[in-house]
This record gives sequence, structure tokens and C-alpha cells, in this order.
Amino acid sequence: MLTNKRRVLIEWGDCDPAGIVFYPRYFQLFDTCTTALFWCAGLPKPEMLKRYNILGLALVDVQAKFIIPSRFGDEVLIETTIIEFRQSSFVISHKLFKAEQLAVECFETRAWIGIHPQDPMSIKAKPIPQEVITLLSRPGRHEEIKLP
Amino acid sequence: MLTNKRRVLIEWGDCDPAGIVFYPRYFQLFDTCTTALFWCAGLPKPEMLKRYNILGLALVDVQAKFIIPSRFGDEVLIETTIIEFRQSSFVISHKLFKAEQLAVECFETRAWIGIHPQDPMSIKAKPIPQEVITLLSRPGRHEEIKLP
Amino acid sequence: MLTNKRRVLIEWGDCDPAGIVFYPRYFQLFDTCTTALFWCAGLPKPEMLKRYNILGLALVDVQAKFIIPSRFGDEVLIETTIIEFRQSSFVISHKLFKAEQLAVECFETRAWIGIHPQDPMSIKAKPIPQEVITLLSRPGRHEEIKLP
Amino acid sequence: MLTNKRRVLIEWGDCDPAGIVFYPRYFQLFDTCTTALFWCAGLPKPEMLKRYNILGLALVDVQAKFIIPSRFGDEVLIETTIIEFRQSSFVISHKLFKAEQLAVECFETRAWIGIHPQDPMSIKAKPIPQEVITLLSRPGRHEEIKLP
Repeated sequence: MLTNKRRVLIEWGDCDPAGIVFYPRYFQLFDTCTTALFWCAGLPKPEMLKRYNILGLALVDVQAKFIIPSRFGDEVLIETTIIEFRQSSFVISHKLFKAEQLAVECFETRAWIGIHPQDPMSIKAKPIPQEVITLLSRPGRHEEIKLP
Repeated sequence: MLTNKRRVLIEWGDCDPAGIVFYPRYFQLFDTCTTALFWCAGLPKPEMLKRYNILGLALVDVQAKFIIPSRFGDEVLIETTIIEFRQSSFVISHKLFKAEQLAVECFETRAWIGIHPQDPMSIKAKPIPQEVITLLSRPGRHEEIKLP
Repeated sequence: MLTNKRRVLIEWGDCDPAGIVFYPRYFQLFDTCTTALFWCAGLPKPEMLKRYNILGLALVDVQAKFIIPSRFGDEVLIETTIIEFRQSSFVISHKLFKAEQLAVECFETRAWIGIHPQDPMSIKAKPIPQEVITLLSRPGRHEEIKLP
Repeated sequence: MLTNKRRVLIEWGDCDPAGIVFYPRYFQLFDTCTTALFWCAGLPKPEMLKRYNILGLALVDVQAKFIIPSRFGDEVLIETTIIEFRQSSFVISHKLFKAEQLAVECFETRAWIGIHPQDPMSIKAKPIPQEVITLLSRPGRHEEIKLP
């Protein structure tokens, strides 16, 4: 499976009065990693939404373990890959490393959703197109270069 | 166990371009519900941190299911209660209802943490004081009144 | 002019490692106060967007002074009122008080915007309907009751 | 004066239901740009706070103009430089460009703050050390390389 690696600097605004990352911010970071993984697969989200007529990748389920806290100024590495495709959803894994150690591990189940055909105010999961699965299933690692 | 109920209005800034809540915002809401539960138990967080010499209630593990999406302007009800006390951590449950339906369910394991006695740059879980457990274990429901 | 007052508890996730409010969060609070003011005027935002076929109240200009910092657990009072209507924009003032003292003062100029008639990917300011101006220009103070 | 340029991708979670950046997120971005400017000057914030015994760079005043909205997936360029040093504060300018056009302009006045010598619960502005002024006053442009 295609894997994306991002180096991220923990920012001042990510941290709470205890000096460690306020945990909802991890999910914000992971969301940007999901977008980055699709981008690397040749599926930039803005175009992908239009091309496949979807609204987004809605969260169905999330499970995360917080092993080591991170602080302002820490440089962390986030490794993102899809570990399972289902009919209209997929499981994506994010591993956040601090130095060489696994600090946070997160599994998200996300649905491929569009507007409900019978009700424009509702959303409905749609089958994931085979070409999307193929693009994300290629082997390979993309490593982002990021300098402050 | 003491249970806290909060009525929350889903705000414009909580929602994404698909018009539904951007999922990290749910955890931000749940964090305020944890604080509110302790408050109702007679443990306002600012004083609690000082009285018991702790840094906070660090996340160890989170599991959440997103069943029904919420949109800007929705009024939701969040019911929060502790479901298990362990030696230095506890499991807290947040149920978010939209109309009468369960829309999001979240279980957080949080540790009672202080500064590590041997290393001021590290944190360490501490035993939860019995009086804290007693205060949160009382039966009762507190319902917040909130008007826009 | 109609004025709205909200009592807000500064939350853990609003604060940074210095223990004070991370300043972008003030604007997030002020945004909810703008929504609340319109709500009190009989203009709940979700319905208002549909009724007047607008996309929102886009920021044109903001000026803010930060006089006294606020900390986690502080209860603050935010007073919001419109101080000027222009053709397709208005100036809204937010005063945040800590105890009796003015702690933050903010003036936002916001435009009443819709989809550009010639380009669906662009936005365009539209004249503010007279009835909206009338509803917001009534004298009166609404005070929100909020308990943790 | 030293200038820092960052290329930033507007993320899904930065945008609101109107599909454009929710404006408090701009200030969050600008905060990371302030940190990056100091970093490039040889002043990484975590070490800087310790070395000069300060709590942070507290906001005193902000003025911003929002000229062109940005959307999810837009790549923007933010140019950050200090335009004035005062005794214990400075004015920093952030210009956000979309394609070649100025889209947002922001001026922040920030104070160099430490713990109040007479009251550990209060903060107090301190004179900015001359070496900090010198490091930030050097000519030069640093351009960050960032790939998704």
C-alpha cells in the first residue's frame, strides 16, 4: 500500500496549559495526513471531490492510543497508509513517531460519501471506485520535505 | 455515577466544507464536557489541578463511533459520565444525541497525571484520590441550561 | 441597537502553554457571538442563509486590542452589538469583560455575501435587506444564561 | 529586516460551510509564521523561552484586512517580517498571497512577556534583548520548501 510520511512541527497553538498537545489537534493533523496520502496517490482532494461527485471522507469510527506526549517544538513524523478497503469505506492508519518511538497510533474508518439521491440534505456512503483503490494500493513511500 | 448533560449548539466554525462537523471538533466538545462533569462534582478544574498537584487528565486511549452527522445550527445534547475507575486512570463516556437519536458515542481513557518526581520535563500517572472517585460516583444528573 | 451578552467559560483547549487564551480562539468565540446576536434578533443563521440566499457574513476587516489576558477557568462576559450598517457590510463590536474590566475589544467589518451571479466559484457582497437592519437595530439587551 | 516565506496548503479543516477559510484559522497560520521567522533568525521558540526567561509573545493589538477569500486546496504564500521594534514589543506583518495577489494583510503588535516579578499569576512585558533585535534585523529572505 502507498504510504505517506510527513514531518510536522508541533506548534504553540497545538499545545495546552500542561504544555503538551491538546488531543483534538492530533486528529486535525491526521486529517491533513489523509489528504496528503490521497494527494500523493494522484488524487488531490479538491479535484477528487468533483471528479467522483462526493462530499468527502466522513468519519465512521476512530480508535487511537496516546503512548508518549508531544510538546511544543517537537518534530514528529507521521506515517499514513490505508490498511483495508471495504465496499464504501476504508481503514486508514496514522502512526506518529517522536524520535524513533511510536507516540500515537490511530485507526480511522472513513466512508466515501455523496449527497443522498433521495434527500439533498442527507449524505450516503457510495462504493469506492476501483481506480481510487488501485491508486492507493500501489507500493511506495512518499516522504515530504519540510523546513520551518 | 454522576452524569452531566449539556445542550450544545453546533457552531459555524465547527463545520467543514461538506457542511457537517469537522470531526476533531467533537473531541474539543467532549473535552469541555469532561471539565463540566468534574465541575458539577464540586471539582472545578483550575482548583482541582492545584489541590491535587496534577497537570491534567491526559488521554491514553479514545474510541468513537460517528453514527449520524451534525450540521451547523443543530442543537445536540451530550451526556457524560465516568464508567470505570482504575488505579490512576478512568474511562469516561460521552453520548451525543441529535433529537432523540444517538449520533456520536465516545469512550476516553484518561490518566491522572503529575510532573514526574525524577524528571520535571516528564509526566507520570498518579493514583486518583479516593475523594475524587467518591465525588464522581454519587448518583445524580446535572442538566445545563443554555440559551443562544 | 440590539445587544447580546454571553457568559463564556474559558476552556482548557482555548489556552496555550503560557496558560492564557491562544489568541485565534478569541475570534472563534466572537464568531459564535455574532451568530448569537442574529439569533436573538430573530435571525437564526441556518434559516437566514436560506431565506436571503447568502453564503455567510465574510470578514473584510478586523481590529482588536488585547488588554488583559484570560486564563483557563475564567468566566468572561462578551457584549456584542452592531455599531454601523453600510450598504452591503456592517461593523460589529465585541467587548470581552473579565470581572468588570474590559479585557479584549474587537471590531469586525463583515460583508453580506452571496454566490457571484456570473461565476459560481466566486463570492460577491450583496445589499443587506432593510428588514435585517431593522431587526438588529431595535433597542434591547439579551442576556444568555449559561451554567457549566 | 529578515523575512520568512512559507507556502501553506489550505486544509479541509481550515474551511467553513461556505467553503472558504474560517477566519480565526488565518491567525493560527500567522502564529506559526511568527514562530518560523524567529526560528530562521536562530531563535527556536522552545529554547528562546528558556534562554530569555519569557512566557511568550503575547498579542497586544491586531489589524487585518481580508481582500480575497481562500478555499480548500489553495496553495498560498505567507511573507512575514518585523516592521518595528519598540522597547518591549514589536510589530510583525504577515502578507498572504494567493497566486500573485495579496489576499490577507495582517499587522500584529506582540509583547515580550515574562512572569510578573511581584505576582507569579500575572504577566509583565520585558525589554526585548538587543541581540534578539539584531538577529531579526539582518537582511535576508528565507523560503521554506514544502511539499504535500
